[in-house]
This record gives sequence, structure tokens and C-alpha cells, in this order.
Amino acid sequence: MSAYVPGEQPKVPGLIKLNTNEHPYPPSPKVIEALRAALDGRLRLYPDPTSGVLRQKLASRYGFEPDQIIVGNGCDDILNLCVRAFCGECEKLAYFWPSYSLYPVLANIQGATQVVLPLDDDFQIKAHPPLLHQLEGVKLVFITQPNAPSGVWLPRVELQRVIEETDGVVVVDEAYVDFAADNCLDFAREYPNVIVARSFSKSFALAGMRLGWASGPKELIGALLKVKDSYNVNRLTQLAGEAALGDWSYFEETVGQIKATRARVIGRLEEWGFFVYPSQTNFVFAKPPAPRTAKQWFDGLRAKNVLIRWWDADRLRDFARVSIGTDEEMERLLEATKQFV
Amino acid sequence: MSAYVPGEQPKVPGLIKLNTNEHPYPPSPKVIEALRAALDGRLRLYPDPTSGVLRQKLASRYGFEPDQIIVGNGCDDILNLCVRAFCGECEKLAYFWPSYSLYPVLANIQGATQVVLPLDDDFQIKAHPPLLHQLEGVKLVFITQPNAPSGVWLPRVELQRVIEETDGVVVVDEAYVDFAADNCLDFAREYPNVIVARSFSKSFALAGMRLGWASGPKELIGALLKVKDSYNVNRLTQLAGEAALGDWSYFEETVGQIKATRARVIGRLEEWGFFVYPSQTNFVFAKPPAPRTAKQWFDGLRAKNVLIRWWDADRLRDFARVSIGTDEEMERLLEATKQFV
Repeated sequence: MSAYVPGEQPKVPGLIKLNTNEHPYPPSPKVIEALRAALDGRLRLYPDPTSGVLRQKLASRYGFEPDQIIVGNGCDDILNLCVRAFCGECEKLAYFWPSYSLYPVLANIQGATQVVLPLDDDFQIKAHPPLLHQLEGVKLVFITQPNAPSGVWLPRVELQRVIEETDGVVVVDEAYVDFAADNCLDFAREYPNVIVARSFSKSFALAGMRLGWASGPKELIGALLKVKDSYNVNRLTQLAGEAALGDWSYFEETVGQIKATRARVIGRLEEWGFFVYPSQTNFVFAKPPAPRTAKQWFDGLRAKNVLIRWWDADRLRDFARVSIGTDEEMERLLEATKQFV
Repeated sequence: MSAYVPGEQPKVPGLIKLNTNEHPYPPSPKVIEALRAALDGRLRLYPDPTSGVLRQKLASRYGFEPDQIIVGNGCDDILNLCVRAFCGECEKLAYFWPSYSLYPVLANIQGATQVVLPLDDDFQIKAHPPLLHQLEGVKLVFITQPNAPSGVWLPRVELQRVIEETDGVVVVDEAYVDFAADNCLDFAREYPNVIVARSFSKSFALAGMRLGWASGPKELIGALLKVKDSYNVNRLTQLAGEAALGDWSYFEETVGQIKATRARVIGRLEEWGFFVYPSQTNFVFAKPPAPRTAKQWFDGLRAKNVLIRWWDADRLRDFARVSIGTDEEMERLLEATKQFV
């Protein structure tokens, strides 16, 4: 059994790190303030096991009841809980592919039977009968919306066909959705079998704190709450999440900045003959103009101390994934890329 | 299926909270300092997925190689990983009883078959043939050393007989061991099937940060590393653990203080006719003199704003568990108890 392989976290001075889709700006100053105020003897006390205040704030921000919300030690914790709660050993777990490489790892750990649903050549879902047929008897389906690593938005209507054809639970993994023009949170309100998972790592610049959450029908969220670790989110992380939600203008401003930078980067890459998928995320998935290869691009940038991500895997190896950094960082990437093409 | 029920976390002003075995003193000032220095833009970056520095420090402090160490989001995370890695659905999971009530919860979540090994009337293990016979085919055994909630030390030789009779993995859960005169860390070095689990919550005053760790043979630890969440311990928690280990004299001083307070409390309770198990932990498990009951003691203290823990459960209901607090807190407990007896 293979473990999930996260992107590298090298400690090279001056490295431009565009390989793990981190937010390029610091978290809100209000987060730092809230954490500073909490650094005292109270760290000796267990956190609120229900993360009550944070769930209340998420509920009112996103239009749910608190018991329709669970928070986790990162979104990965939530995805893991979904496998544990909804898919027993030898039961069927389905996911679209290529997508987040944690899904097969979680399925393996659980001993679930994997149903791999291929995305089409454009990394899109086409919910035609042969695909829907494969959903028979499936207990849990993971859909990444927008897709990763392609960054593309999947049409809502295709997701709805998958949801309606599935007797099991469908998890819409919206880790990157804050960088998209739309979202599917309404599915978590309207369908009895949909959970939407979210992350504070990317759009709230809190990857270091580990905080994810999910919303859905009370019955499904209740099942997740039963299998979670009692104290799965520590005191400081709960406070960081609360403070981040409390500074919405900072959130909107930094996400807007990343989207503006993304548009500029895509424009330049396309100018130079790259094929770039229309990104609804904080990264772009791009293919250099022939005869240059993605591997050469990756290596060339690495030699100039710019780290992006490349996979030697079917359907992915023609592309490399570039996280959207600050304007200065992207300028460095573009300069190095210009020399490469 | 029932979830684990943690002790109450009420928010009553002036409450003396002696119900969840938290450390009564703040964490080391070096921990606070280290966290303060880390509250900046780096929170946007993922933590080291391997917790490399922390594992190195644990390894050198306790005499292991770093790949014999895993850290987790609290010791509960580690216990959960042990179930996932070593005991499949419908396989046998054994634990001694009464003990930590999380074990049956984890077994239920996994769908494991539970083998309940009764402790004797003094909450001791007697590894006689009928008990050892029950270990046949067991994949995973949990032993709490010292036992909770009785607080008693289990003789090493009895544990060794259990370990030697078990083909599966034996987890010695030493969450409270820093308050004991001995420990079983050497078992993790010497036996191929033993993992010793530890916590920073109690003796390092870091319950709010969520940090646990375990040591054992590389093969077993390697299996746990494969099933853990990639980023299971956040940036600040890793730093808190490193700083706590770096202030060993503070650790020894506060643990020593708690042990001294414990001795004094036990002495007073015994003076008043209580039966108290010889505690090797940061709590005492005590039975009031007849005709007074433990429930009456619990209720009487609660009325005076002193919260201890009482379970309405077989073998436990004659006793109440009292966490060792500061001297001032224990004075309040003793005063209220004196009025009660």
C-alpha cells in the first residue's frame, strides 16, 4: 500500500515555491491578533470538542444550521471521516480520475473496492449512461469541484446527474472553490446524499493551521461527528478559523488579487503558445508549446530556483501545475519561462 | 454506534475544574515564546508532513531512531491509526476493562470484533491461562499503563506475559506515565510487536494543542506513517512540542509538584476514611467512607463549584475520579470534602 505523496517542502533560500497551491499572502492580521491573544495558560486545557463557536460562525456565514457543519484537522481529515463513516471494507468507493491523489490512498487504507470513473479528455465529467451504470452499489463518490490538477469547472448539471444516480453519499470536494465563479454549496442543502467539503488552507492562507469543514444534511454530518476524534481541532486552529471568517474583506481582497494574477499569467503563457486549461482555482495546469515538454519546463524552472509540480503519470505528464503566487513571484516564473520558450 | 463522551468543558466562572485530567500549571514559558515567534505569514504554508524536527527531538530524548517515532494530532489520533493499520473489519481487537472508554468506540468505528479482558477487582492484570487464551487470533491489544481511571500501575511482568502471548500488536498506552515511578518504553525497543503511546496533554500541559506520539519497531511505525493524514500535526503544534521538550527542568518541576500535591491529597482523603487506589497518574480514584456514596460526593462538590468525574457504570460507580490541580484548587476540594464527610 502506498501513502499519499505531498508536494515537496524544500528549505532552499530564495526558492519561489509554486508547487503546493499555498496562498501567497499572509493570513489576515486579525488571525495573528487572535492567536497572539490566546497564547497563555489556557493551552493546558482541552479545546471545545464540538468546535461550537466556529461551527456557529460557519453556519451563519454560509447559510446552514450548526449541526449541518463539521470541522476537521484539515479537509483531509474530513475526507477520511467520510470514507470511514460511509464506506465499509470491500464496499464500493468511486472517484473521478485524474483528480486528488488522496482518494485512492484513503480507499486502500479502508480496504474499499475502488471504482475509477475516467474524466474525458478535457478533464470534464460526461454523465452518460455507461458512466452512470458504474455508480450502481457505490457507497461513496468523490468529486473535486473545480477539478484538480486541471483546475477546470465541472458543469453543475453533470454533477447533479451523478448525485441523482447515486444511492450512496456524494462528497463534492470544493477545496479550491473560492477561486471559482460559482460553487455547489446549495447541493449540500438540497440533496439528502451530498456533502460539500471546504478548506481554510488555500483561500484563507491557513495551510499551516490545518482546518477544513464540510456541510450537508444533519444525518450525514451527525454520522461524521460520531467517527471524528473527540478533540480533532485544537484551540488555536478553532480561533484562527473564527478570526479568518471575521475578516471577510481581507479574504475577498486577497482572493481577488490571486484571480487577477492568474488571468495575467494565463494570458502570458497563452501568448507564448502554451495550452492552459481555464482555471477556476489558485493554480494553472499548462502544457508548453512543442517540441518543449512539461518535464523540461519543470526542470528548467527548478534550475532557476522556481519550483512547480509535475507528475510522471498517464494523462498528466504533458502538463505541469503552477500555483499562483504574488505578482513578484509570478514575474520570476514568467521570466524564467520566457527564456525557456 | 455511540461516540466517545469526553468530560464536560463547562464555562462557569470560578469553577474548580478537576474532571478531565488537565495539567494545572501553564505550559513552559518557552512554549509560549516559540509560538509567539511563529505567528506570522508562515501560517500560510503547509507544515512539515513528517514532523521531522520534532521526531528527531523525541528520538534523542527517549533513545530511539527518528523512524521509530510517529507524532499525531493528540494521542487519540495515534490510537485510531493503530486500529486502522493493525486491525481490519471483523478482526479481533482486545482491551482490558475498565479502562479508557475510547477503545470500544474505535473498535466499533472499525467494525472490529471486541475482546474485553476484565481487570481483576483491584484493576490489575492477572495474566493467567484463561485470560491469555483469549488473546488467540487477536490483532491488536490496548493496555493503559498506568491504568485509567483507577490510576494504578500494572506490573511489568504481567504485561510481558500478555505481549509474549500475543501474535498481534500490543499498544501500551502511557498517556499518564510521566506521573509514575516507572515506564515501559523499553518494551517498544525490545519487542517486535509493541508500540508505546504517549501524550503531551497531561504532563506537558498542552491538551489545547493536541499532540501525542508513539514509539516502536520501524516496521510498525512505518505502517502507522502510511495511514496517517499527510499533514496530521500543524505548524504550531510541532513547535510547541519541540519547545516543551527543550525545557526539561520546567517539565520535571511541574510534574514533581503535581506528584507532591497528589501525595498530600491522598493522605487527607485516607485520613477521612476514603479508599484511594495508589495513584501513578495525575488523578486519584477514590471511594468515600460508607454510608456516603461517590455520587453524593460528586454532587456535593458540584454544588460548591468543584467539578470531578463520576461514571454511572459497573465497577466504577462506587468511585469518583479527581484530577490533581494546583495546591489552592486541591485545598478547595479538600475543604468541600471535609464538610461532606
